[in-house]
Amino acid sequence: MKQFLEEAKKTSHHIATLSSEIKNKVLLEMADALIEHCDYIVNHNVMDMEEANANNLSKDILERLLLTGERVQGMAEAIKEIAAQKEPVGRLLDGWKTKDDLNIQKVSIPIGVIAIIYESRPNVTSDAAALCFKAGNVCVLKGGKEAIHSNKAIANILRSVLAKNKISENAISLIPDYSRESVAELIKEDKYVDLVIPRGGAELIKFISQNATVPVIKHDKGLCHTYIDKDSNHDKAIDIALNAKCQRPGVCNAMETLLVHTDVAPYILPPLYEAFVREGTELKGCVETRRHIDIQCAEHEDYDTEYLANILNIKVVNNLDEAIFHINKYGSGHSEAILSENYNTVNTFLDQVDAACVYANASTRFTDGAAFGLGAEVGISTSKLHSRGPMGINDLTTFKYKIY
Amino acid sequence: MKQFLEEAKKTSHHIATLSSEIKNKVLLEMADALIEHCDYIVNHNVMDMEEANANNLSKDILERLLLTGERVQGMAEAIKEIAAQKEPVGRLLDGWKTKDDLNIQKVSIPIGVIAIIYESRPNVTSDAAALCFKAGNVCVLKGGKEAIHSNKAIANILRSVLAKNKISENAISLIPDYSRESVAELIKEDKYVDLVIPRGGAELIKFISQNATVPVIKHDKGLCHTYIDKDSNHDKAIDIALNAKCQRPGVCNAMETLLVHTDVAPYILPPLYEAFVREGTELKGCVETRRHIDIQCAEHEDYDTEYLANILNIKVVNNLDEAIFHINKYGSGHSEAILSENYNTVNTFLDQVDAACVYANASTRFTDGAAFGLGAEVGISTSKLHSRGPMGINDLTTFKYKIY
Repeated sequence: MKQFLEEAKKTSHHIATLSSEIKNKVLLEMADALIEHCDYIVNHNVMDMEEANANNLSKDILERLLLTGERVQGMAEAIKEIAAQKEPVGRLLDGWKTKDDLNIQKVSIPIGVIAIIYESRPNVTSDAAALCFKAGNVCVLKGGKEAIHSNKAIANILRSVLAKNKISENAISLIPDYSRESVAELIKEDKYVDLVIPRGGAELIKFISQNATVPVIKHDKGLCHTYIDKDSNHDKAIDIALNAKCQRPGVCNAMETLLVHTDVAPYILPPLYEAFVREGTELKGCVETRRHIDIQCAEHEDYDTEYLANILNIKVVNNLDEAIFHINKYGSGHSEAILSENYNTVNTFLDQVDAACVYANASTRFTDGAAFGLGAEVGISTSKLHSRGPMGINDLTTFKYKIY
Repeated sequence: MKQFLEEAKKTSHHIATLSSEIKNKVLLEMADALIEHCDYIVNHNVMDMEEANANNLSKDILERLLLTGERVQGMAEAIKEIAAQKEPVGRLLDGWKTKDDLNIQKVSIPIGVIAIIYESRPNVTSDAAALCFKAGNVCVLKGGKEAIHSNKAIANILRSVLAKNKISENAISLIPDYSRESVAELIKEDKYVDLVIPRGGAELIKFISQNATVPVIKHDKGLCHTYIDKDSNHDKAIDIALNAKCQRPGVCNAMETLLVHTDVAPYILPPLYEAFVREGTELKGCVETRRHIDIQCAEHEDYDTEYLANILNIKVVNNLDEAIFHINKYGSGHSEAILSENYNTVNTFLDQVDAACVYANASTRFTDGAAFGLGAEVGISTSKLHSRGPMGINDLTTFKYKIY
């Protein structure tokens, strides 16, 4: 592992200096190569799918694992979009002249070696590799064990394009072995690795946060809330709440708990109930909620659960402060929304709720690199420093001061 | 410790929402209170000085530890300057409208609870507390054991001003006990502490980097180089090299190793030798250097040493690449300088040297918050993410997205 990372670090000095033109040319060739070798990728994916079926993995995992011709096409398109993005390296972030006549320029530069640890989706392999490469970084990837054949096939194709262009294949690699020990070693090699980005399971993220000496940007769970204020527009509120929960319940920016102001609970809970029942949502509520609608009881631990499913907690609160307190206590600092027409209430909520993205009268589902207009994203950072919220390509750079 | 940090976290929600007006009023009162209670502070410092003398601490430490009326006056002035700085919270960092008509605002906000661990200078207590407070953060401070009486006296005065203004005293605290175990516990409480900034000894920084689960911004050693290129102006080069080493040898932005291009070594080494000898600098050189001037031999480990004293290594290199290679191998990513009149050489150096601050024809001594025009600084970050180089007040904030 150490020697492998040492090579990665050495390669990073070279990758950091590649011109925009070369990087984009290589990325477009990678996109073409994925399409050209689509059968090779799909055949390797079949091996993963067979093993996953033999191991009785869940339908959800099988669905995430599957690659088809269309999905490979999608991976190629994503790389083309990344190639088309504005060059992230060499941006002048700030600049000024000092009293001693120094000209200071704060300029964006690549971070160096970035390790990304993710779950079973094989398309993340090409997305992450392309994003890191575009930002002048070397990436060291570890995908889910279930997807190892697919990931190896994808990495082989991307690496062969590097080799064809006389660029070290070390710029994009899968870690040599997939054991827990190997990950534990990786996250302690701070001499060679500049950043580790864990995406996925809570246990994995906890393990990495507690053991890494390499800086970590977490892509942790999204425990998101929507608060319907007493001064909300009821029709809009119901629409937005439905979107936040039901549009795609299995993702991190979906709502898990709906907070409702006590003054409007009698009027808004019944139509909300009807709307959610039509969507097949399983509802759980606090004592006060259950005075108005006939649903199951929400237990304390329900407020602490990221369902990633079409299940919703509903809680009645006495005022804005109670809503903010609940969110700051149970939220994961991801995305939180208020639905209110009251200027002061909205501003207080946006100021006092501690989260990466705080919404006024919009669904938490908008927390997404593409919806933000940032282009392809590495994921949604729930860390507080360097990058927060949708992590776009510019967040894969750091900066240096050039002083003339 | 846990309960203490829980209180700090709770207080941080309140401090984050204080108005600019209140924060500046409190800071000015803190400055006045330090001057008013100058005798109280100096008397407590006498206790530290007596203990330090009894323990035979070095002259250097005694010098750093000492507080006089004039120094307390300086601490008060520093707080007034911090009060006068532009408000760091609520800056609109970016803003745009998306295709879905969302108005996105990226706004600076306080980080939360910041732990700062530093050495024996007691003035850091008031500087760090004032910087954190101005940026809406709660600070948890641990200074050197030698300065405990001084630090307690300073913290008491600052806290009494908070109390007078009905702000929780928990906004500024010293950690309750100074043991290693207690620090070890602090840096693992990531639920309550958002950032730890270790300043000072290499061993301390290593311990914290390897054990923290809280994000760390290191203020590590400065192993800085100056490279005299073959196309340099010799008079300017000698002036800048002298400044980089001799103006204040005991600080992190002073030069430790001078690299000289082989083509100019015969001409520039003799006058450099004379100039450094006049300044009393102890010189060590590589084999090639010693062919031109009669100095001690530099051993391999000398290139890896931050002297913090008037000692300098000199090494002759064959070309720019060798200079860059040496710097990227031995440098600490702090500050590096090239002295050259050649446009391409300068640009290659600034691009390829991996450090927070890279200088063209200027001394590494300029790496400083005040010299950069950033105002009072927390220190010089040698980390690569979030903050790099002189860490000013804006680096004590993070951001959130407000979406309308």
